[in-house]
Amino acid sequence: MSILVMKFGGTSVATLDRIRRAAKRVGREVANGHEVIVIVSAMSGETNKLVGFVEETSPLYDAREYDAVVSAGENVTAGLMALTLQEMDVPARSWQGWQVPLKTTSAHAAARIEEIPTDNILRKFDEGMKVAVVAGFQGISPEGRITTLGRGGSDTTAVAFAAAFGAERCDIYTDVDGVYTTDPRITSKARKLDRIAFEEMLELASLGAKVLQTRSVELAMRYNVKLRVLSSFEEMSDEAGTLVCAEEDIVESNVVAGVAFSRDEAKMTLQGVEDRPGIAAAIFGPLAEAGVNVDMIVQNISEGGTTDMTFSCPINEVKRAEKAMGDAKAAGLIDFAGLVADTDVCKVSIVGIGMRSHAGVAAKMFQTLRDEGINIKVITTSEIKVSVLVDRKYLELAVQALHDAFGLERAA
Amino acid sequence: MSILVMKFGGTSVATLDRIRRAAKRVGREVANGHEVIVIVSAMSGETNKLVGFVEETSPLYDAREYDAVVSAGENVTAGLMALTLQEMDVPARSWQGWQVPLKTTSAHAAARIEEIPTDNILRKFDEGMKVAVVAGFQGISPEGRITTLGRGGSDTTAVAFAAAFGAERCDIYTDVDGVYTTDPRITSKARKLDRIAFEEMLELASLGAKVLQTRSVELAMRYNVKLRVLSSFEEMSDEAGTLVCAEEDIVESNVVAGVAFSRDEAKMTLQGVEDRPGIAAAIFGPLAEAGVNVDMIVQNISEGGTTDMTFSCPINEVKRAEKAMGDAKAAGLIDFAGLVADTDVCKVSIVGIGMRSHAGVAAKMFQTLRDEGINIKVITTSEIKVSVLVDRKYLELAVQALHDAFGLERAA
Repeated sequence: MSILVMKFGGTSVATLDRIRRAAKRVGREVANGHEVIVIVSAMSGETNKLVGFVEETSPLYDAREYDAVVSAGENVTAGLMALTLQEMDVPARSWQGWQVPLKTTSAHAAARIEEIPTDNILRKFDEGMKVAVVAGFQGISPEGRITTLGRGGSDTTAVAFAAAFGAERCDIYTDVDGVYTTDPRITSKARKLDRIAFEEMLELASLGAKVLQTRSVELAMRYNVKLRVLSSFEEMSDEAGTLVCAEEDIVESNVVAGVAFSRDEAKMTLQGVEDRPGIAAAIFGPLAEAGVNVDMIVQNISEGGTTDMTFSCPINEVKRAEKAMGDAKAAGLIDFAGLVADTDVCKVSIVGIGMRSHAGVAAKMFQTLRDEGINIKVITTSEIKVSVLVDRKYLELAVQALHDAFGLERAA
Repeated sequence: MSILVMKFGGTSVATLDRIRRAAKRVGREVANGHEVIVIVSAMSGETNKLVGFVEETSPLYDAREYDAVVSAGENVTAGLMALTLQEMDVPARSWQGWQVPLKTTSAHAAARIEEIPTDNILRKFDEGMKVAVVAGFQGISPEGRITTLGRGGSDTTAVAFAAAFGAERCDIYTDVDGVYTTDPRITSKARKLDRIAFEEMLELASLGAKVLQTRSVELAMRYNVKLRVLSSFEEMSDEAGTLVCAEEDIVESNVVAGVAFSRDEAKMTLQGVEDRPGIAAAIFGPLAEAGVNVDMIVQNISEGGTTDMTFSCPINEVKRAEKAMGDAKAAGLIDFAGLVADTDVCKVSIVGIGMRSHAGVAAKMFQTLRDEGINIKVITTSEIKVSVLVDRKYLELAVQALHDAFGLERAA
């Protein structure tokens, strides 16, 4: 038995006609000898409509009721997909999350998958069913209530099913035809990648590439699920899309796989902070408690016993960060002369597993930006990425220059 | 503990604003000391939209998938109603059918309720919850799949909950303010009834009055559930609406409670049927097998060994009846000279428990129609109703004349 997981996002099931097109792809995989688990999102717009209802009804909503309401959209698509397949004489039935049951934690609206028993669906496959259509994004808590997995939850559902069933591959159908070296709207030289390593995809996803949800890539990496991203609007072929896979499965690759960027960053500087042991904990503890996602951190050289501490965080968390720092100061936990927020910045990153074995990649990035006259405000690095914060106005220029400098328009 | 069941139909929860108005009524009953089970329909239009999706996808749909799809609307309303109540500081939570669990037969799209365990909800009431919001119209089959109860299923859900929990009353909120002596669109003399007996309501519902679903009235009668029909668009008062109750609870009533009518009737005449023992079974057996709902039957006096057999059925079953009779003739089961369908008729009925003790009610009906020059085509009677088939053009005249003749514009 060779099981394939196919996931169709909201735009791929937006109308009955598109559901039919998606079902045809499923039918072809069945004809190829696969048993298929199809994970569906809600028809595009439906979940947003339901979220709107909830937020209008109750701004500080009970997340358990939120989940009960917003999970409705996926149930509709699952039933319609099963019916469409049956019309094509493909034996299929739908499962809602609680019917599998896809067991999750009780963290409503952001639940984590705990367990996916396979017996129910495998028994149906044994009885001759060819396709199990599963409503994505949802599960059931230990208390028997409906949970949802949060943004991008259907990708995560798909990868989790692929892991639980030992699927041959997990195909994510979406409205783009794969993972690109950078956003094609920024440079026409952007090139679709045939393959990309899990680690690279993970960095790209966390750094702002929207094609896959971070958690789904994490999960795929942990269970070594072969993940393919492809467009539901193009002809099927085995070469279509981008395969996200283990490093070993990539024969040749550029040193840098892609250039990511994010406009949603802010740079915050705490001025005149007392430079003493434990000061970092005293600052970042309260920020973490306030739910501020601090990304990059730079501490300046100390002068006269004080220093400046600079960090970046998502732009919509600036107010929260300011309040947390003000409160900590008022409580006597820290002292500082001032707090300056610069929201006119962006983050540009290069990502590539090749950096591990190639020296001088970061230096080449800094050189390239300097040659374009772009001033770097903050830098962070990891084993396979280098990120810099620069003025927002340089975003396109920086991305294009780096894309050229690392030769990303050509495959290795 | 005094439990009240309140059911809100689709028009009563059509928008968030209307859900708020409905929730206010629930809140007032909680303030009056009740624990409340609220049964909700889908927001008006939602179920039709989903049914449309299913029918477009698969004309001969798998009823199990139909149920999975069309039950989505009620789940959304249930969650939104719970959130709305919480916003008003009324402790509430939602239940989907499978969570109760409301156990039904496996007859998908027309399932019957088998059992409603009360322990889950009663425990929550014990813990201080005041309102259980339950998605109407749906349940779970022995196989663990979602079922729906068919048209008017939310009324039936409400009455079944009232019976299971021994509720003080079951209030059905709808877009009319009660049960009328006849349709106010036919005569302005139509009068709202304060009370009506179960048996009368049952006849009126089966005879075309659309205010309550027949099955819900049957269930209320069997378990002696006090059922009140009232408008969600009028001010609350204890005197509002119509109470459907046992005969003993009605002190005074008119001999005739109401005049019902239906335009969806057809008169079929089988001409020249051989008059022999067993001929009725030979005719109506095949009709029943073909799913034709035969209502009235008249057999003419036999002449020369043959007779005419006249029956009525819903107008949209005429084709099916013709095919069933044609097939039976071709198979040699019956013989007849011709089959004539008259679709230009209507059924007018008078209903009242007072008929049991008053002679001459039927005679007075026939007299009244004769005085108006209306020819009666077929008659049927039961203990508490008399129905006649007349030409469609006489519908308004017949209803108005009967309403006047039995003095229905005045209470007894």
